[in-house]
This record gives sequence, C-alpha cells and structure tokens, in this order.
Amino acid sequence: MTGPDTNGPDDTPLDEHGLIARYFRPLATPPGAYELIDDAAAFSPPPGADLVLTKDGIAEGIHFLPGEDAATVARKALRVNLSDLAAKGATPVGYLVLLGLPDNWSEDWIAGFASGLDADQREFGALLYGGDTIRAGGLVVSVTAFGTVDAGTIVRRSGARAGDLIYVSGTIGDGALGLLAATDDARLDRLDTGSRDHLVARYRLPQPRVALARAVREHASAALDVSDGLAGDLDKLCRASGISARIRAGDLPLSPAAATAVRADEKLLSICLTGGDDYEILCTVPKDRASGFERAASTSGVPVKVIGEAIDNGADSVFLGADGRPLTLGRRAFSHVDRTYSLR
Amino acid sequence: MTGPDTNGPDDTPLDEHGLIARYFRPLATPPGAYELIDDAAAFSPPPGADLVLTKDGIAEGIHFLPGEDAATVARKALRVNLSDLAAKGATPVGYLVLLGLPDNWSEDWIAGFASGLDADQREFGALLYGGDTIRAGGLVVSVTAFGTVDAGTIVRRSGARAGDLIYVSGTIGDGALGLLAATDDARLDRLDTGSRDHLVARYRLPQPRVALARAVREHASAALDVSDGLAGDLDKLCRASGISARIRAGDLPLSPAAATAVRADEKLLSICLTGGDDYEILCTVPKDRASGFERAASTSGVPVKVIGEAIDNGADSVFLGADGRPLTLGRRAFSHVDRTYSLR
Repeated sequence: MTGPDTNGPDDTPLDEHGLIARYFRPLATPPGAYELIDDAAAFSPPPGADLVLTKDGIAEGIHFLPGEDAATVARKALRVNLSDLAAKGATPVGYLVLLGLPDNWSEDWIAGFASGLDADQREFGALLYGGDTIRAGGLVVSVTAFGTVDAGTIVRRSGARAGDLIYVSGTIGDGALGLLAATDDARLDRLDTGSRDHLVARYRLPQPRVALARAVREHASAALDVSDGLAGDLDKLCRASGISARIRAGDLPLSPAAATAVRADEKLLSICLTGGDDYEILCTVPKDRASGFERAASTSGVPVKVIGEAIDNGADSVFLGADGRPLTLGRRAFSHVDRTYSLR
Repeated sequence: MTGPDTNGPDDTPLDEHGLIARYFRPLATPPGAYELIDDAAAFSPPPGADLVLTKDGIAEGIHFLPGEDAATVARKALRVNLSDLAAKGATPVGYLVLLGLPDNWSEDWIAGFASGLDADQREFGALLYGGDTIRAGGLVVSVTAFGTVDAGTIVRRSGARAGDLIYVSGTIGDGALGLLAATDDARLDRLDTGSRDHLVARYRLPQPRVALARAVREHASAALDVSDGLAGDLDKLCRASGISARIRAGDLPLSPAAATAVRADEKLLSICLTGGDDYEILCTVPKDRASGFERAASTSGVPVKVIGEAIDNGADSVFLGADGRPLTLGRRAFSHVDRTYSLR
C-alpha cells in the first residue's frame, strides 16, 4: 500500500481512543452514533419511511490504483454506495465504514482518510454512524450506507415497461477511459493532457448523482447505478423488468475528452460501454412522465439524456451504430474474473 | 489463504449470476432483499421501533486462523456482529456482508461460506439482505448487522450507577486460551485434549448471546459485548457511565477447561481477563432488578453470574484476588497494535 507508506510505518503505537476521538468522532454527529463509544448505533426512520441499505467495498489495486491518496480512497468508498442509494431514489442519511489496513498504516494516512469522509459528509449529507478499523491483508474499505424513501417508493430495477424511454445521467465511459489513461494505455497516447486529466479524475473520484434521487423517485419506472459498464448493467435492468432495449449509440452522452478519444480510435466506444466505473444513473421513464422527469432533473442540476427505448422482450438489447446496424461489443460488463462482481 | 487453496484456484470462470443464484439468493428470503438483484435492500422497522446497526469485520490471520474453514469464517463474521446487537438488547433482523477474496478463491470455498451463513440464519434469525463480493489483498469479511428495539430502549454503555451489580454471561477466557491452544502455546501443554478442544472451539466459533437480549433490554442499566478482554471492556463501560467497578476474581465464571488451565498456571488468569474473543455480555443491573434479570436470563437459557459491583468513581476498577488484594494485570485489553481496534 503506497498511500500509508509515504509516511512510513508508524513506530509510535497510537492510543485507540485518541485515534477515534481525533479523527472519527468529529464526523459522528448524529445522536444515534453515540460519539462512537458504544457497540452499535441507533436510527429511527421517520414514520411512513422505508429504510434503504446498500453495501459496497473497494480494495487497493482492484477498485482503485495502488498508492491512491487516503482522502480519495475514503470518498470513493463512500460515493459508490451513495450512487446506489441515489439510483433507488433514496435520500442518504448515514453510513458505517470498515477500514481494513495493512501493517504499514500510519496516523497521517488515517487523518487523510477521515478528511475525505469529512469533505463528502459536507457535500452529500450522509453522516458517520459507526464502523470498525482492523488490520487486514491489504487495504480494503467496506461501507454500508443507508437512506430513506417514503414507504413503498423505492425505485426497483424491475419496473420498466415496453415504450418507456431510457435515460442516463452525466456522461458514459469517462471512468473506463480514465483507468486506461491512469495506467498509460497506448490507446490514449494521442489524447491531450487536459483530456487525460479529466478522464483520470473521473476514474479516481466518482460523482454520485445524489441530487437526481428525487427526480428518479418521482418519475422513473426502474433505475440502477451504472458501475459495471452501461451495456451489462442495462442487461440487468432489462432482465429484472422482462424487457429489451434499443439504444442509439450516437445518442450516448460522452464528455468532450471521451468523444475525442473515440473519434481517434472508434474501438474505444466498446470500452466506454463495457468498462464500468461510471457511477451514473440509468433509468426508464414512461413517455408521459418524460417532461416531468426532465424538468426535475434540470432543477437538480444533473444532466440527463434519452439514449433509447424499452421494447418488448424477445431479443437481446442492441446498441445501434450510426448506420442503423447493431454494434458488436467485446464483453457486456466487468465480471468477477476481471475485476469484481457484486452480489447486487 | 488455505481455505480456498484446498481446492486450488478455480480455472473455470464462474458466471456471476449463477454464483449468486446458487449460493446467496436462497439466503436472501426477506421481501426487501429483492432476491439480491437490485442495487440496495429495503426494510421498514415496525412503528415505534428504533433500528440498531453495527459493523464489525474479521481478517484472516488477524481475527481467525489461516486456513480456517469457510463456514466457520462466515459464522464468526456474522456472530461477532450479532453479539453487539444482543448487548444492546436488540432483536436481530438482517445483515449485509462484504466478502473480500484473495486471488485463489474457489467455488467450493464460497459454497462453504454460504452454508455457514445458512446455518446461523436458522439459529439466530438474522437474514441476508445484500452485500458485495470483491477481490481483495487477503481474505476479509465485513458484516453490517441490524436489528430493532422499542424506541428509546437501546441499552447503552453509559447507564450504570454506583451500587449496580455487574453481571457477565457464560464463561470468560475460553477464547483467549483457545487461541493459545490453537497455536500450541507451551503454557497449555499440560492440558488434556478434551479441554484443549473445548477452548479452541470457543475461539473459532463465538456463541453470541442473542437469547439474552430481552433480559438485558428489560433489566440492565448498561451493557456491552466483551470482545477485547473483560478488563478493558469493563473499563470502557465504567468510563462511559462515570463509575468504577470492584470485581471479585474468584467469582469470574470459568469453564472447567479454563479453570484447569488457571489452576496449573495462575498467570493464565490475566490472559483470561485481557485476551479477548469472549463475545459474552457484560452488564450492570440495579439491585432491585437483579432477581428479575436472573429470572429472565434463566428463561433465556443463558447463564449469568454476578462478578462484582459498580462503585462511585474516583479509583480505577479493580480485580480482587482470593486474599482481597488487587490483582495486577499485564495489559487491560487487546489494542490495535496487537491485533485490532474498534471504532466502537
């Protein structure tokens, strides 16, 4: 683990209570967090609300680059969970974090980690309720985030119907191309520095679409967060809803940097669609809700774009190229063999 | 990781959905788990209930022995969390699990892991709501468990008052001595095989006192689960409550195996008090509630024993030996330097 290593192993054993008091207790402001001095936390959802829970973890060298700075590791771990909550239409409330540290951890690294959590607490409003910090074989962070929706209003993957419009937030492919750029993949050699920096930044620190949660909750028939590649995640939504999808590849929202990369090497479009790490929201909206959804999205400040339409089942989902013919994608999504798999 | 290694690296890439469907979906029976095919889970606490959340993780070679079998790893990870819920008086409802796997994982190992979860779901009633399985630098399991208490009835560490009786459940020291036995520590050389086996079993698989939760909720003024050593955990309760404690070492409940070990080498008593891995409940009960607590505990089938009394603050907690003089303990609890530390 390079991050903790930059300060060298800490030879002075830290007092457990001092460490918690200094770095984590200031983040644990809800009454039910009990200042992190109890065995558990307590939370009372408002009457008529459902609790929404999600749990995603990230490990060094798998989900983030070796040597990533501590604050960014903390924020990425929190944000991949906030992205799940947003896709379900939930308002974030809190989180618990397990930090698994290798032997060479340092107090400075933990200070940086806590500062990352602090920054994102201020940005997204989810507060620390508890956690556990352990020694582990490698740097790993596991977050459980929770939020609320009005009872029965969680947005599932399974509600899409034929005829619904398919929307995606933000831009697609930056994260996957950013990983290529960060690892000096030759396919991006001709990209200018500014574009590369943009892509790498998108890979390192996802932007969870928390602000879009209300629009999703009020208008979408189905939704998920795009974390394993748009193509594969769209397949998951289609399977859960019993539909197929027809996507116009030319309508996919690409950042200027991604668009430049794809213009230079059209094979990179496949990477954009299957590479993962987007943390955007893919959702379906009935046509008669489309203008309401777009207005609500506009109010939220999160760009959304129609990329296709849900169709009756009976054929695989297709991505249509500019010539109207289906694109061939190398693989549909990251699998556990490549990088990770998710139980949900 | 020896566990997964026994089957060798799996050369046949498993289909993600097949893996989930086969091993984990059968465990995810609550409606709000959405059969593990959504981004998040939903749960509605009953009206008037508080949700209680806890998160503890375990890593190979730190919290369990290298090569531990998969089912036991799963059960230990779940049980250390159920122990926290029980100490708060909470009824377990569900859990989410992050499984971080090293490169050499196998399907057989995952099957064993799931079978361990299945066994404990049947025993304790907490059901799988979701999770995440990732590749990581070493085997690590992070569980978030949740349960409910009637609003405002969570049992904190901070409610003890001078004069309260101090109780502990089960027996103390088996886990710590079990770790010595499992690692062939010479101090246990004279112990017979049956006693060693008992201690090792107690280390490998904690027995969370879920059945005692109701008695704790209805009668205890303060409680915590004893995971880092009775002496240090008692100090935590005392600090949180602003009291001290006088413990009669002769009243500590030891298993026959632990009692035999301590008779053979009295220094092992210090290990019993500071070694951790008990996962028993330490609680304080006002004297006028003592008979009610003992009746409720008896109904639950969990043995409890008075070991001392809470006294006004002003002196450190003391463990009194048979001669009435304070014992000297080497260290008060496992710290992060030795093994682990907990944010809560």
